[in-house]
Amino acid sequence: MSEASKSVVLLSGGLDSYTAAAIAQNLGFDIYALTIKYGQRHAHEILTSRKVAEALGVKAHRELAVDLASLGGSALLGDGDVPKGSPDAARIPVTYVPARNTVMLSLALAWAEVIGAYDIFIGVNALDYSGYPDCRPEFIDAFENTARLGTKAGIEGRPFRIRVPLIAMTKAEIIRRGLSLGLDYGLTHSCYDPLPSGTPCGLCDSCVLRARGFQEAGIEDPLLKQVS
Amino acid sequence: MSEASKSVVLLSGGLDSYTAAAIAQNLGFDIYALTIKYGQRHAHEILTSRKVAEALGVKAHRELAVDLASLGGSALLGDGDVPKGSPDAARIPVTYVPARNTVMLSLALAWAEVIGAYDIFIGVNALDYSGYPDCRPEFIDAFENTARLGTKAGIEGRPFRIRVPLIAMTKAEIIRRGLSLGLDYGLTHSCYDPLPSGTPCGLCDSCVLRARGFQEAGIEDPLLKQVS
Repeated sequence: MSEASKSVVLLSGGLDSYTAAAIAQNLGFDIYALTIKYGQRHAHEILTSRKVAEALGVKAHRELAVDLASLGGSALLGDGDVPKGSPDAARIPVTYVPARNTVMLSLALAWAEVIGAYDIFIGVNALDYSGYPDCRPEFIDAFENTARLGTKAGIEGRPFRIRVPLIAMTKAEIIRRGLSLGLDYGLTHSCYDPLPSGTPCGLCDSCVLRARGFQEAGIEDPLLKQVS
Repeated sequence: MSEASKSVVLLSGGLDSYTAAAIAQNLGFDIYALTIKYGQRHAHEILTSRKVAEALGVKAHRELAVDLASLGGSALLGDGDVPKGSPDAARIPVTYVPARNTVMLSLALAWAEVIGAYDIFIGVNALDYSGYPDCRPEFIDAFENTARLGTKAGIEGRPFRIRVPLIAMTKAEIIRRGLSLGLDYGLTHSCYDPLPSGTPCGLCDSCVLRARGFQEAGIEDPLLKQVS
């Protein structure tokens, strides 16, 4: 068997990025996992990313801090309350973090160029999160073009690919795909606003979408099984 | 007089970004200066950016840390020696920092969206630094497109402009323009590898280009006047 190619995978502690990483592995890539500590209200996300990285058996895991919270502008960064109730697909949620995916992809790109990885995986999803502009295919294409033009590797004829295996999947499809790859979603964490104990609130957009996904997939969420 | 528009200006401690900021001011913009602490070998650059921000009378100055040095890959970040001697325009210098301008522009974009600034200034220059892929107009255009597609403001019809007033100027032209705007280049700092005292080495690409610029402009560099 030939040597596996390297890939940089943006890994939060969430269900989506865990699944994206497993898909990358299933395609034959070695995983260089990058967790961006951008000032999330919940440090749980960082701890979860470590558990997930270990479960995946990644080649390396880096945690890179960038204090987006000091710039303000999002409920996820401590500005205002995280809304509870049904997600509204018609508006951009207050949990939107300005330019978040542009920042995260640019940091992944920096590391990818250093280690010679030409595939960058990000678990964005355009269906369930249509409110976030930086989860859409046209944004991903634009960033890929920027990466090609703005790097030494890119202009020397080795372009980067931004891979978004989940972009057109429903949450239920993501869950079914992950389970078929043997993932343990009991490790993951999706809540925007967990209790101090780490227990999911069950009410924020992210909890609601996760619950709906497991329901549609006809599977009980192993995370809730642990809690109850 | 109507209220000035806001602009985010990426401000290092260098001659170029100082001049770009002054040009933005001259166009009537208020300056929100952003200094990215990306693990430069020289902390002098940070101190200089504070002096320059004060001299300009900016509305706000933020310093944002992101530890690109932990990802490695550049002589400017401590990997290998900074080369001395004449810059070679035909190759990409080892002082190239992977994806640096993509990272810096994405952080500027994040802040710009938060404060409602739709103009982002960066002092890149395609003539003197043709070796850096992320200083070319085609990269800037690609990033501007990414910014439009990846932000709430952009898709709501308020696109961001990435402004590069120095991109086609020679170093001598930049210096003349800055002097016409009353700038004190004795405040600025260009050296990639200064002595512990802060004195420029006089030998790295950046020192050589600066010296050539002042020579072509027929002006003595006030920084060297201070040192001698």
